[in-house]
Amino acid sequence: MRMYDIIKKKRDGGELSTQEIDFFIRGVTDGSIPDYQISALLMAIYYRGMSVRETCDLTFAVRDSGDRLDFSAIRGVRVDKHSTGGVGDKTSLVVAPIVASYGVKVAKMSGRGLGHTGGTVDKLESIEGFRTTLSEEEFIGQVNRVGLAIVGQSAQFAPADKKLYALRDVTATVDSMPLIASSIMGKKLAADDDCIVLDVKTGSGSFMKSVEKSKELARLMVDIGRSAGKKMVALITNMDRPLGNAIGNSLEVIEAVRTLQGEGPEDLTEICTVLAGYMLSLADMGTPDEGKALAKKAIENGSALAKLKETVAAQGGDPMRIADPETFPKARFRCAVKSVSEGYLRSADAERYGLASLSLGAGRNTAEDGIDYSAGIVLKKKVGDYVHIGEEIATLFSDNEGAFAEAEKTLRDATEIGSTPPPEEPLVYGVVD
Amino acid sequence: MRMYDIIKKKRDGGELSTQEIDFFIRGVTDGSIPDYQISALLMAIYYRGMSVRETCDLTFAVRDSGDRLDFSAIRGVRVDKHSTGGVGDKTSLVVAPIVASYGVKVAKMSGRGLGHTGGTVDKLESIEGFRTTLSEEEFIGQVNRVGLAIVGQSAQFAPADKKLYALRDVTATVDSMPLIASSIMGKKLAADDDCIVLDVKTGSGSFMKSVEKSKELARLMVDIGRSAGKKMVALITNMDRPLGNAIGNSLEVIEAVRTLQGEGPEDLTEICTVLAGYMLSLADMGTPDEGKALAKKAIENGSALAKLKETVAAQGGDPMRIADPETFPKARFRCAVKSVSEGYLRSADAERYGLASLSLGAGRNTAEDGIDYSAGIVLKKKVGDYVHIGEEIATLFSDNEGAFAEAEKTLRDATEIGSTPPPEEPLVYGVVD
Repeated sequence: MRMYDIIKKKRDGGELSTQEIDFFIRGVTDGSIPDYQISALLMAIYYRGMSVRETCDLTFAVRDSGDRLDFSAIRGVRVDKHSTGGVGDKTSLVVAPIVASYGVKVAKMSGRGLGHTGGTVDKLESIEGFRTTLSEEEFIGQVNRVGLAIVGQSAQFAPADKKLYALRDVTATVDSMPLIASSIMGKKLAADDDCIVLDVKTGSGSFMKSVEKSKELARLMVDIGRSAGKKMVALITNMDRPLGNAIGNSLEVIEAVRTLQGEGPEDLTEICTVLAGYMLSLADMGTPDEGKALAKKAIENGSALAKLKETVAAQGGDPMRIADPETFPKARFRCAVKSVSEGYLRSADAERYGLASLSLGAGRNTAEDGIDYSAGIVLKKKVGDYVHIGEEIATLFSDNEGAFAEAEKTLRDATEIGSTPPPEEPLVYGVVD
Repeated sequence: MRMYDIIKKKRDGGELSTQEIDFFIRGVTDGSIPDYQISALLMAIYYRGMSVRETCDLTFAVRDSGDRLDFSAIRGVRVDKHSTGGVGDKTSLVVAPIVASYGVKVAKMSGRGLGHTGGTVDKLESIEGFRTTLSEEEFIGQVNRVGLAIVGQSAQFAPADKKLYALRDVTATVDSMPLIASSIMGKKLAADDDCIVLDVKTGSGSFMKSVEKSKELARLMVDIGRSAGKKMVALITNMDRPLGNAIGNSLEVIEAVRTLQGEGPEDLTEICTVLAGYMLSLADMGTPDEGKALAKKAIENGSALAKLKETVAAQGGDPMRIADPETFPKARFRCAVKSVSEGYLRSADAERYGLASLSLGAGRNTAEDGIDYSAGIVLKKKVGDYVHIGEEIATLFSDNEGAFAEAEKTLRDATEIGSTPPPEEPLVYGVVD
């Protein structure tokens, strides 16, 4: 088999065989296929697409390119939730303890933030002492004992995806449905869950800008997961605006705790209870609506918050941070962004809010950058609110006072205030099951 | 400027600016753009194409990526002919001396053979002592003195094309009109001719399999040459079958000499006099038909043959080989391929005849391979001839007796004998001017 022939076949619109896709991914993983042939094939796939069968094969080959986890030692149903990434998206910190509080097992592997999007692992590391690296034995032991563990993805996980993603990122081939789906699902399937709820974000802050494309991606990922024997459902959720009020690592942990205390922002609480409802439903605990009611109950009776505290303590983090989030270290500087006009807050562009938070030190431009855990943004006004001149729209936090000017400008440019209320936008655009 | 943005622009069907194309080719030449980004752009160009303006810019950037020749010290009109390559194509050895015999200057740079196609430089090197590397001073001096010099292309010539071609070759992006045109014309324009006649081969033995595509390529190359201030014309000529009777290096030199003696095969003589006619016409020596008459005259009166002999002597080759081509060293072995059926020879697939010659030792699989100068094929029957059982179709020549079996099989598979005469095919499909 020759890589040249595989490129040519796809170039001409042919359907690659399972053997050809396996050959490709093996060559990506062991380095025997040079980068220039990989990127030529990626561009051909960008134009020609892939059938569902090819995409499944690609996903499975990516999954099998490195270590796979064996969760058979975990007792009980294993449910995961995966978000395609957004701004202010701290749902994992809320839904995982809710679900685990009902005895459903959540063995969660999460990513780090990059660019304008955040990552659950970074958020948890804002809690001093919290260990996001556990041995497989520790990880499985904690899931059995506590019901929940959250770690970072190991480098031995789906190494072909790392290589492919690095090349896609510099060759303008990120934006391809089969490549996106196989990248996400290849990593997801290397874990060993029974059920997966996908939270496919749509809008400016996500990498899928249209609802139609998001639904298409959700459909594809659900089909891939099913063909691997998983119980699957996907929700298409709004990421045109930041989710909740907090953007930034410890700020988002604080907001997650408030949400588990029943005092979270309305949009975040709604999405978290819906997602947790679907997770519980996949784990055979009733309909999604019944699951949502259970989720609300776990917030009301404090069992979800207790589960988060237990998890943080189990992984070496200071449980005081959860018991009293006011104890989190504060950023050295803060800056109030006040409105210079009056009217309805019509839009708050999630991507640019994320970039503003990034410039305050809360995120990474490259994978090697460090993070200021207390930096970020707290929104004082949300889309739909009425704003008067001089009222605070948002508070910026940073250890770097020099960063405020740029962040404030970015945030102001990303915020539209007008004389009429904005059109209603749903939080959840649809469910793909 | 970032290569990523250039890839993305072309990916989305945009037209690259002159500055963007220059940036790309500079980065290819100095190695600052990694191969994986180059090949991603090549694949995007494969799908999206390029406007004539972009293709001209790409050609000029390739031309300017290395040394350029200055022929201003050459006295008189400088005319070149360029063939896109074929099987049995020894026209340069015939037309260059014809044209030079009229005082038109031919400062010719030729290539080597690769795969099933031959190269003029290899053919000339079958003459012991013939030097295909001359200093610029020697080269220009000989053109002024003799009227004709033929050398190999230096490595300092259009280095961006070498790099691009090597990548296209392994990423299935050879077959792109703007990339083909800019590759050929980028090298051609690095020389300093006044007039160029393009011989665009069409059919199985060439890399353009259809007449329509060949015309399109011819049109594009003529337009590029004109925009660089050259007088241009292109002929679309038949390469479905080998040209002339001889395939292989010294065998082709012998046939070229026979043709200049007025005893060449009809098809070769016709194409050579037509091509030479156009070359003379571009050099203001009348119409193409008048030029063709002049070409025939130069064969009849021996002046063209004398010019070839003079050129060979000037470049250190033994002029006896031209005076009496029977003195060429013979291959150690020969093998007669005899017909096992009776009927009309309906087709002789040029590409596969070229591959048979290659397997006899006459060509190269890779640029590093050595060559058996006396190896090759002499056709005894041409398309349209009637063949009886046991009659010789072709003679194979090689120093490696073990190569005959494979070559004979290839040749038989490439030869169709049937009960009806083949349809007439023109030698020249058209002229693009």
